[in-house]
Order: sequence, then structure tokens, then C-alpha cells
Amino acid sequence: MTLQEKAALCLGSTFWHTAPVERLGVPAIVLSDGPHGLRRQPDGNQAGISGGLPATCFPTASALGSSWDPDLVRQVGAAIGAEARAQGVAVLLGPGVNIKRSPLGGRNFEYFSEDPLLSGVLGEAHVTGVQSQGVGACVKHFAANNQETDRLRVSADVDERTLREIYLPHFERIVTRAKPWMVMCAYNRINGVHASQHRWLLTDVLRDEWGFDGVVVSDWGAVGDRVAALAAGLDLEMPPKLGVSDVALVEAVRDGSLDEKLLDLAVSRILRLIERAGPRPAPADVDTGAHHALARTAAADCAVLLKNDLGLLPLRPVAGDTIVVIGEPLRYQGAGSSQVNPTRIDDLVMELRAALPPGVPLRSAEGGETAVTLAAEASAVVVLMGLPASDESEGADRQHMDLPTNQITLLKRLAEVNPNLVVVLSNGSAVHLRPWDRYAGAILETWLSGQAAGGAVADLLLGVVNPSGRLAETLPVRLEDNPSYLNFPGEHGHVRYGEGVFVGYRGYDATGRDVAYPFGHGLSYTSFGYHDLTAAVIGSADSDDLDLTVTCRITNTGDRFGKEVVQLYVGAPPSSVARPVRELRAFTKVTLEPGAGVTVTFHLQARDLSYWSTRDRRWLLEGGTFPISVGSSSRDLRLTVDVHIPAAPATVPLTAGATLREWLADPAAAAALRSAIGADAAGNPRGVLGDPELMTIIGDFPLSTLTAFPRLGITPEVLTTVSASLRTEDTGSGP
Amino acid sequence: MTLQEKAALCLGSTFWHTAPVERLGVPAIVLSDGPHGLRRQPDGNQAGISGGLPATCFPTASALGSSWDPDLVRQVGAAIGAEARAQGVAVLLGPGVNIKRSPLGGRNFEYFSEDPLLSGVLGEAHVTGVQSQGVGACVKHFAANNQETDRLRVSADVDERTLREIYLPHFERIVTRAKPWMVMCAYNRINGVHASQHRWLLTDVLRDEWGFDGVVVSDWGAVGDRVAALAAGLDLEMPPKLGVSDVALVEAVRDGSLDEKLLDLAVSRILRLIERAGPRPAPADVDTGAHHALARTAAADCAVLLKNDLGLLPLRPVAGDTIVVIGEPLRYQGAGSSQVNPTRIDDLVMELRAALPPGVPLRSAEGGETAVTLAAEASAVVVLMGLPASDESEGADRQHMDLPTNQITLLKRLAEVNPNLVVVLSNGSAVHLRPWDRYAGAILETWLSGQAAGGAVADLLLGVVNPSGRLAETLPVRLEDNPSYLNFPGEHGHVRYGEGVFVGYRGYDATGRDVAYPFGHGLSYTSFGYHDLTAAVIGSADSDDLDLTVTCRITNTGDRFGKEVVQLYVGAPPSSVARPVRELRAFTKVTLEPGAGVTVTFHLQARDLSYWSTRDRRWLLEGGTFPISVGSSSRDLRLTVDVHIPAAPATVPLTAGATLREWLADPAAAAALRSAIGADAAGNPRGVLGDPELMTIIGDFPLSTLTAFPRLGITPEVLTTVSASLRTEDTGSGP
Repeated sequence: MTLQEKAALCLGSTFWHTAPVERLGVPAIVLSDGPHGLRRQPDGNQAGISGGLPATCFPTASALGSSWDPDLVRQVGAAIGAEARAQGVAVLLGPGVNIKRSPLGGRNFEYFSEDPLLSGVLGEAHVTGVQSQGVGACVKHFAANNQETDRLRVSADVDERTLREIYLPHFERIVTRAKPWMVMCAYNRINGVHASQHRWLLTDVLRDEWGFDGVVVSDWGAVGDRVAALAAGLDLEMPPKLGVSDVALVEAVRDGSLDEKLLDLAVSRILRLIERAGPRPAPADVDTGAHHALARTAAADCAVLLKNDLGLLPLRPVAGDTIVVIGEPLRYQGAGSSQVNPTRIDDLVMELRAALPPGVPLRSAEGGETAVTLAAEASAVVVLMGLPASDESEGADRQHMDLPTNQITLLKRLAEVNPNLVVVLSNGSAVHLRPWDRYAGAILETWLSGQAAGGAVADLLLGVVNPSGRLAETLPVRLEDNPSYLNFPGEHGHVRYGEGVFVGYRGYDATGRDVAYPFGHGLSYTSFGYHDLTAAVIGSADSDDLDLTVTCRITNTGDRFGKEVVQLYVGAPPSSVARPVRELRAFTKVTLEPGAGVTVTFHLQARDLSYWSTRDRRWLLEGGTFPISVGSSSRDLRLTVDVHIPAAPATVPLTAGATLREWLADPAAAAALRSAIGADAAGNPRGVLGDPELMTIIGDFPLSTLTAFPRLGITPEVLTTVSASLRTEDTGSGP
Repeated sequence: MTLQEKAALCLGSTFWHTAPVERLGVPAIVLSDGPHGLRRQPDGNQAGISGGLPATCFPTASALGSSWDPDLVRQVGAAIGAEARAQGVAVLLGPGVNIKRSPLGGRNFEYFSEDPLLSGVLGEAHVTGVQSQGVGACVKHFAANNQETDRLRVSADVDERTLREIYLPHFERIVTRAKPWMVMCAYNRINGVHASQHRWLLTDVLRDEWGFDGVVVSDWGAVGDRVAALAAGLDLEMPPKLGVSDVALVEAVRDGSLDEKLLDLAVSRILRLIERAGPRPAPADVDTGAHHALARTAAADCAVLLKNDLGLLPLRPVAGDTIVVIGEPLRYQGAGSSQVNPTRIDDLVMELRAALPPGVPLRSAEGGETAVTLAAEASAVVVLMGLPASDESEGADRQHMDLPTNQITLLKRLAEVNPNLVVVLSNGSAVHLRPWDRYAGAILETWLSGQAAGGAVADLLLGVVNPSGRLAETLPVRLEDNPSYLNFPGEHGHVRYGEGVFVGYRGYDATGRDVAYPFGHGLSYTSFGYHDLTAAVIGSADSDDLDLTVTCRITNTGDRFGKEVVQLYVGAPPSSVARPVRELRAFTKVTLEPGAGVTVTFHLQARDLSYWSTRDRRWLLEGGTFPISVGSSSRDLRLTVDVHIPAAPATVPLTAGATLREWLADPAAAAALRSAIGADAAGNPRGVLGDPELMTIIGDFPLSTLTAFPRLGITPEVLTTVSASLRTEDTGSGP
């Protein structure tokens, strides 16, 4: 391959195609948008958003995240993959898995969760599903792409521990387990360096640590300096700056500023991708009816029943009852590159009407006086509320979490005439529910649930399906309670991740903040019991073969078939770093007939108990007693067992820069120090060791500093003596 | 002077002396601890803490901060200066002015406030007072020294805007207005660089920007690399590493790694200091009685009456009444380098007993059953509560904000037998008051108020003095509400200042958090009215001669002589950066007879309305409407007037890296862009300009990025055309 051919291959040939190398028979392959459904633009129509070819619009990630069900997400992924293959698409640009750092994030509707484990498990399932169809998935946006404001320039200023514990683990899981063909770099900068040029991110971590063997593609337009990006590990630039980027690559190789081996590496990865993509046997026709049915099943399993105080749901209408539906149609997706042109759209009113028993009329109104009049005479009122479409688009963060005032006003008026109000919400990002939720007897949060949302809601309202969704993000009482509040969306090109690892429930819990509805919350029409929690440790933390097996028995204690999401949270022992009160470390969704039970088993490894030590630049498990809890939400923990994990305490090298307190914490060092400083005639320690008041004041002084305080007894000679004695004793302690 | 002599002069000769140059008749001068009183150690006793020569122990800075009275602080400073001069001390190592970032800060009792203006005004007064006696003051600890944990190594990771707006302005005010002879660098690192080696801090900011002409001394033991420290602007190392640091300086000059001119500069500053210090006429004897009386006046004006629901205070005992005092003696100072050996100590019980009218017995008990029995029969019960001495020492941050449980338990029992409970608090840092404050009819917070605290409290309880202290820091409901909570005290050598400028009330207000008692709060035995707020703007923001004059009339509407602290807060208009809801920008303490009134006038300048623009690296005033409020606390604003400040909006250079939205916000640039992109046959704008949906999605894309999206109409040619047209129009706009 010539230098020019190599360079050309590292950018697209059109907005959606890679570059062919016709001389060598290398074909162009097609990439298409599509986290929750394919957005395949007809060739020649590049920039328009809504003009994609028809495809099944599945629930958005905001909804799928609430399913807590990797099997379901895998099925959805497979269906999207099948549609992509039918359209000749080689790589689908999804899933989007960024962490919901703030409820205001403009693309939150495209992301799963505020928690990296949940995001990782569902992202892995999505990729596995798509790729089961011979179509590549592209995980995005790598990394720390958590806002829309100034999204092409803003620098996410974030420390490594926070990256490792919150913003990277789900990417790591997906890359190492599902092996996506592609990873898309983010638009933003990270600590001042564009993601597209971030060598640590794209090469050190993604490839060297995680073993990624696919292609890194730019988000559309994310490449500034093409040569720097290639050197950092960015293989494919999209859309192409034809005649600019390719020329720059060629020149850089020629003038020696770019090592041709790096170009060869990118080329080999792109060729591997093209090889993976085809050619293949022609795809079978897509069964759009079956896909719509899957979309309906999925939507139903994503909805979260937030509240059901009066047991109002499911509706049990009998002849003579009247059901009223008030409000505008459910929204089912957001705006931007993810926008699907659906094959059909379920209408809730029609679905509900069709499903009601004979003699139960259904009336509907969008709002106004008619609505109140209808509500006054109804046996139950379904009120459709949510965010207007203009509030949720890629490219813009939200300014607040409020529903439109007119919706609240109407709800209040309805409550005055009828207490049996069922609120059905459609919104892709979290909204304020206080104080209006008091007017609602029941609240069903559907998020943006795709083209079959209407049918799914009908199924849920009437009890055809039992709700089993759980919140994938905390619903705070007030936006101001969110841990990122003071630092979102940043200013003048920088956003400080000031809350560190305390994102989402980790922050609300650390500050003991009341929330409207906690992470993991969701009601069911049945009830579940938790029993017999056990935990057993095998292996040792120090030898890195630790296995912590946790078992628990779950029973359906109600009178109805249902699904429970069993959530396992690990608490923190005292530690040398600030750790979240609890972190989700495992979960499973179980299906139980009434009266039935099942024993679930979770396996945790050392990593699940560790934190990222910035000082040691590795995962570190400090021993101690870890509370292991299982429950139905992060604040509905049913059973807890304390597990003692033996591990050597975190140590610091006892150099002259170590503090007096650190020296004294080590028995051998303390003894050496006492011996070197000596005692007075009465046998009392000399200097600082004999003066507890002084010890408080200067305990955090490094020994090297204390040599300037002659009366303390830590002379340069003492320091030399103890350092030498420790070096002798220290030989066996490993690398 | 020889090279060796110069080097020797840049470190002390003993723990408290500079180095003499006997050959040239340069004397050694004495430095001594002493923010709230002199701690002059007898020569030869270097390391002991409590063995200083007797000196008046004035209220600590935690108390003086609550006076909000620069005149008072100046008098205290002058008295301390006089005692220092009498003892032959040349420089007093105070005041300490660091910002109370967290209530847990172990040296908070040595600092004034969570607010930089209040800290600056009082610090300026302290320095002025000390230096009026021919003794130098040493402002400390420069800078961002806001915790004790790992204090010699921890890096305060803090952005420049936060430094400029919160952690430096009070140093700036003190240095530029009071011209202290000395500044002490902090122990900690700032963004990874030790303060002692921080050239930007010690030279660029302190000397070049602020014009400091004095000596920078190390905190005791703060110097690691002596040569790097000297090059950064650290003149004097204390205590000296004799035979190490001087040798290092000589060698560095000899081997060329240190420019001798830098050494000469440090030497010239130290010589200037020695020249300032003496010789002088012998000092007059110190009138310890007068100083004790001043200490009593000061302590009384520092105490904050937090609560007086029942009008319980002042006590108005008549014959037949019984007063009971319960609890351990008031604490009056904290532990560490600031610890004064007092000339005498007032005992509250003795002072109170002496002041009670005939026929009113005073009984006292430290606690226990006796206390409850006594309380049951008393007409009023004074309960002394506070932190144990072990909770407050230099060298250790606190772990919590709770009073000892036994105190709360006792209070509750006392409340069961007598509702007339007056709690008198002595604690150097903020404590939790909820929920126990419900048991107290009145609460008087004295902080740590020096040797005359007992007499001052007697004066306050009996109404001899009317309380006039105001909170210099917010008392939160819970520690977890503090904005620094998730980031204090950091870990593994780093503390992230994640709350940015939202320190103290700026944070509680920004998150709309309830507090126990707000910043600026304090009750009086009389009441004050606020009237006739006016605000007038002269000059213009752009020409930097802005003067905003605010006037307001204050009247004493009660029946008793009293003092009011009139506080002026500036609110924020919409801005391109996140700004605090309100910031203290001026205050004055007025003294009024009953029925009397006074008009106060405040002058604000552009800086008082500006923020530090990290992008522009300067103070920036964005025009807009600023709410100007006056009131009795940060949450008791009595009057507000909106002031419109005209100023050019913040602009960004319209380069290819500027976003589409930024281009369109500029009328000329928008016109040029529209013209270059053109319109279709019907006159509608082409490309992105004709597509509002797309505009939302890509409005934050830089123009250079959009050239890769051909359908948008922003071709490389269009970019060239508009850039050229703007350059032509742009010539008049200045640097």
C-alpha cells in the first residue's frame, strides 16, 4: 500500500463510508447512527437528522437502563443489528454509555445510568447483541463526555481515581468482555488534552491495559490535529477532511514528525475491521412486526413504577367505570444523531381503548376545561406528563429539572376533582417530582421508551405486564442537591469534576441527603422477600485470588407473577481514602411466580472491594470489615452481613519524607526511632517522643523537616541510623 | 558582604533569631509567635509550647473575627505590638488569616473568617496596630493553608479563579494597605508546588503584582529545597538548617545553578527588615492592667448572641433570685504555636458573683446531680458548654463538629427542671447546634476569647455590655452540608478544592441549603431599623474609574445603647461564569444610642463587581443588573436595590476555533457569515442557518470543525471569507 493509500484509509471517503482502496480490492464499509434503532441516512442525504430510512425505534438508553436486564438489552441489540445488516451497515454507532454526572446532561436520554456497573453490564449486552448479527458495535463516547455545553472544547478536569472508578470501568468491562469492533472517542478534552489526541486514554489504557484490538473512530468532527490524533491512537477520522487530513498524514511521515509504523498500525486495524465486516451472505428480511413486539416488551420492562400509594394500579375497570386519559401523546425518543424514523407508533389511547373490558368507555383530552370535566366523572384518570421535545436534544444541556408549569397546574386541578390520578411520565432525563407527586396516587416513569411505548403503557396500566423497571439514576428532591451542581457545566473551557467519585447516589449517600426516589427504586404489583444472606471468602486479597461468594434467597410473597431486581451493595471500611457509603457491585433480575423462590449467587473479586490508589497507580484493597447488603434499592437494603477481608494495610515507604506519625505506625520503625533517640536517666523517652502535646502539633512533619528542630531529638544522625536499620530489615518485602 | 555571609543571612542563627553579621555590625533580630498575644520563649527554651514569658492573652482570631470591628482589632494589635517591643521582639508572627474552608480545620481558631473581605479588613487592622508600635507583623500562612492533615506535604489543588477570589484577596488587601514587614509562606503545596518554592505566588503575585517590599519567611520547617525556595522568592528560612541550607546556597551560586542576583535581592530585603526593626529607644513599661481591660472589652465585643428567644438575656436578677452557673470554666485559647502564657485569667463565676446585686446568690457546679438540683431552684441557669481542649490544636483537624455527648445529656436534663437556660459556648471552631439548641432559651457564642473572657461574659449576661458580635462563619445544620465536605481533607497528598469559589456562605446559598445560623448573624439587646437605601454609579466599568456609592440610614429602634454591623452584599447578574448568589463587599459597625440614627456610606469599585476570568487572566466586569442589599446578616437582608452597570459583554476572539454560536452572537460576524453562506432562490438562508433543529445540535461546534460537514454551508472558503472581512472591521478594537 502506498503512503497515500494508507493515509486515505485513515479517514472516511464520505460522511458515512470508510475509504475504499480500489486498487487492492478493499471495499468501503458503511457506519450508521443507532443506539436505540438504526438511523441509516439515504446516500446523498448527509446532514439532515430526521430523514433516516424507517427502522424500529426501541426504548432509548434512559429506558433500557431502567430495565436492569442484560438479556433484554442483548435482544434489543440483536434486533438492531439485524436491521443494520439488512441495510448494509457494517458498524452501528452505539451504544452510548457515558455516566449521567448531572441530571442536566443534554444527552442523558442516550445513556444508561449514573452507575458504572449498571452501564457496563447493559453496554456489554448491547454490544454482544449487535455483534451477534455480524455487525460491529461502536461504544461511545470515550471518555468523560458528560455534558453538551461547549462540548467540542470543554476540558473535563478530573483526577485519575475518579476516572478509574466512575468514568472508565464500564468501558473497560465492555471492551474486555464484549470486544466491540469500534470505540468512538469523545469530543471533549480531558485534563486539557482532546480525547482524540489523548494517548494515555486511547493507547495506554484502551489498548495496552484492556487489550482493545478494534478501531478507534473520532466522534463526527472531533479531530483537530490529525497527526497528533493518529499518534495518540485515533485510527479513523469521520467525517473526512478530504485533502487536508490525508495530506497532513503524508507530510508528517515524510518530514519524520510521524513514525510510519504508527500509521501502519492504524491501517492494519482499519483493514481488520473491514475484514470483520464482510462480505457476508445476504441478510434475511427483517420481521418488523416481531421487532415491534420486542420493542413493546422492552418498553414495558423498562418502566419504573415510582409510587402506587393507593394501590391504584393496576387498573381493574369493571363495566360502568370510565377511564380518562389526559395530556399530550407520550414522547418516545430525543433529538439529535440518535433520532430514528420509526416503522410505526403505538398510540396509548387506542391501545388502552382496545384492551378495556366491554362497558368501560375511555375518554381523552389534551388539557383545559374539558379535561377537568372528564376527570370529575371518571373512575380513574391517566395523566400524561413529561418534558417537551425542545428540552431534550443532543447539543444542549438542560437549564433546570422542572416539568412545564401548565402540567403541574392542570394536575393540581385534576386532583381537586378526582383522587384517582395515575401520572405517566415521558422524559429522557430526570425531572423534579416534589412537591407535585403528592397529587398523584400512582406515578409510572416510562422515560423515552420507543415506538411501542403506548402499547407497553397500556399493558402496565392494566396489569398485563407487572412493572419491573428500577431507577438507573437518583431522582433528587432538588437539582441543587446533585453532587455536581456547583460544577456543572463549568466555564471558560473547563469543567471541574469537583465531586470526584461521589457521583449520583454515591454523593447523595455521602452527604446523607434526602432524595425523592433513590437509585435502584421501583415498585411492583407483587412483593418480594429477602432471606438467608450468606457470604464466604476464599483466597486472599494479597495473592489476588480472592473470591467473595454471596448468596441470598428471594421469594415472591405476593399474588402475582413478577420480576425483582436483586441489588448487591458493598459498603466501605475505614480507609486511607474517602470512599462511598455503598457501591453497586452486582445485581440480577429474577422472575418469580407467586409463592416461588430462588437462591441467587453473586461472586465478587478483589477489584470489587478496592479503590484506585492515585499514589500507587493501581487498584488497592485495604483490609477491613465490609458491610455487604442486598436489597430492592440503594436505600431499601433488606439484609446486611459484615465480611472481614484480611489484607495488609496500605503502607508508605519510610523515607526521610515520611512523617513522624507514619514512622511510628510501623512497629519496626517505631522501635528503631525510640532506640536511636534514647531515653533520659529516668527511662522516659527524650524529645518529641516524650511530649504528647508536641506530637499532636508536629506528628505530620516529615522526619527530614524535624531535623531542623534540634530539641526534638531527631537529628540528622538519628535519621541516618534508623534509615539504615530499616533498610536491613526491609529486604524481604517484595518489589 | 561575602558570599558566605549572604547565604548565612538567608537563614536564622537560632530558632527565633536571624543571623547577625558581626563583621559589619548587622544585629540579629528576634521573631516571636503571637497572633492573639505574644509567645516569647525564654532564650534557650526552643521547642516547648507553653513556657512563654507572661503576656496578655487577647481573644483568638476566631473571636476577633466575630467583632467585625477593625478599630478594635487595631487596638488589640497595638497592645500586642507594645508587649512585643517591651520584650525586644522585632517581628510578631501574626496575624493568621487563612480562610475557614471547612469547619474541621484544626487551626480555625487562629483564623478570622470564611470570607476574604472580613479576613482582609481585620488582618489589615491587626497589622496596622502591631506596626504602629515599631514592631513588624508577619501575615500568614501564604497561601491556601486550610487544613492540618498532612500539612507539610498536601497539595491544595485549586484553580486560579478560586485562588484569586477566595484564598488571596485578603492577603492582597493586607499587603497593599497595611504593608506588613513580613509574609510567612505556608507549609503545604499548591497545585503540586510547595508554597516555599512557589515562584508565581511569592514573586509574580506577591511582589510584582502587589508590590510587597518585605521579607518572605518560611513557616517553621517549610523549606525543602533551599535553593529552589530562594529562587522562588523565599528570603528567610526558619528554623535554620545550619551547615546545610547555607552551604547549599553557596554551592548553588558557585556552580551557577543560582543567580547571585537573586541571593542579593533576598539579602537586601532582610537587611531592610533589620533596619526597620531597630535600634530604637527603650520601650515604655507595659500596663498589664490596661491591656487586661482591653482584652475584656474586646472579648465582650466578639461574643455572638445566637439566640435569645425568651428575652432571657440580659439577666435582670432582683433580690430573692438565684443564679446558677453549671459547667467547666470557659476555654479561652487553643493549643499550638499560638499558645500564650496569660498574665491573669478572669473567672466567670467570681466576676458574676461580684457583679450581682445584693440578695442574689450565685451557685455553681461542674455537672452531675448537684447541677440538676441547683438548676431546679434557680431563677436562671448559665450552662457553660464547648469543645474540650483536646479537640482544638494546631497539627490536627477535627473529625466532627459535635459537642461532647455528656454536655448535651446534661443540658437536656437541666431543661427538664428549668426552662431559663442560657448556654455560653467556648469553642474555637464551629460546632453543631441542632437539635440541642431547642433546649436553650439563649445561646451566647464566645469562641476562644482570651484571658478576660470570664469578665466579658459577666458583662454580657448582665447587660453591662450589649452583644454586638456577628458570625464570621456559617454554622451549618450538619457538617455534611458544608461545601467542602466531599473534599476535606483530601487523600494521598492531594486535596481537591472541588467547591471552587463556593466556600462558606457562598456555597450554602448557591445550593439553597438551610443553615443553623447564617454568616453575619448575631442578636442584640436592642433593635435596628434600615431605611433609605440608595445607590449611584459614577464612571464606567470599561474605563475602570467606576464608583458605586451606596448609602443607607440605620436607626436604633430599641431602648438601649447598641452596635449594629451593617453588611452590604452584592448579588450576581447572569454571567458567563457561575457566581455566588451574594458576596460581602462592604460592612461597618455603627454605635447608636436609643432612638439615634446614622447614615452610612459605602463605596464600591469595579473589582467589587468583577470575577477573575481564568480565560483572560484578569478581573472582568460583565455588565448587567446587580442586586445590592444591606442587612443584618447574609440571610437577613433588609433592603435591596438593583443597580445596572453598563459594560461591554465578555467577548471571545472570533477565530476558527470559536463556535458557531459565538460567531452568531456578534452582529458583524453573524452578518458576514450569512452573506458568505448565502440564501436559496426563495431567500431562505442555506445550510445550517436555515435549520434550527441542526443549530441546537451543532451550535457549539467551532467553525473549523464545521468545515468537515459540507452540507452546512460553512466551507473552508466561507471561513476564509468571513475571517478576512472581520479582520478588516476589527482594527479599532484595541489590544
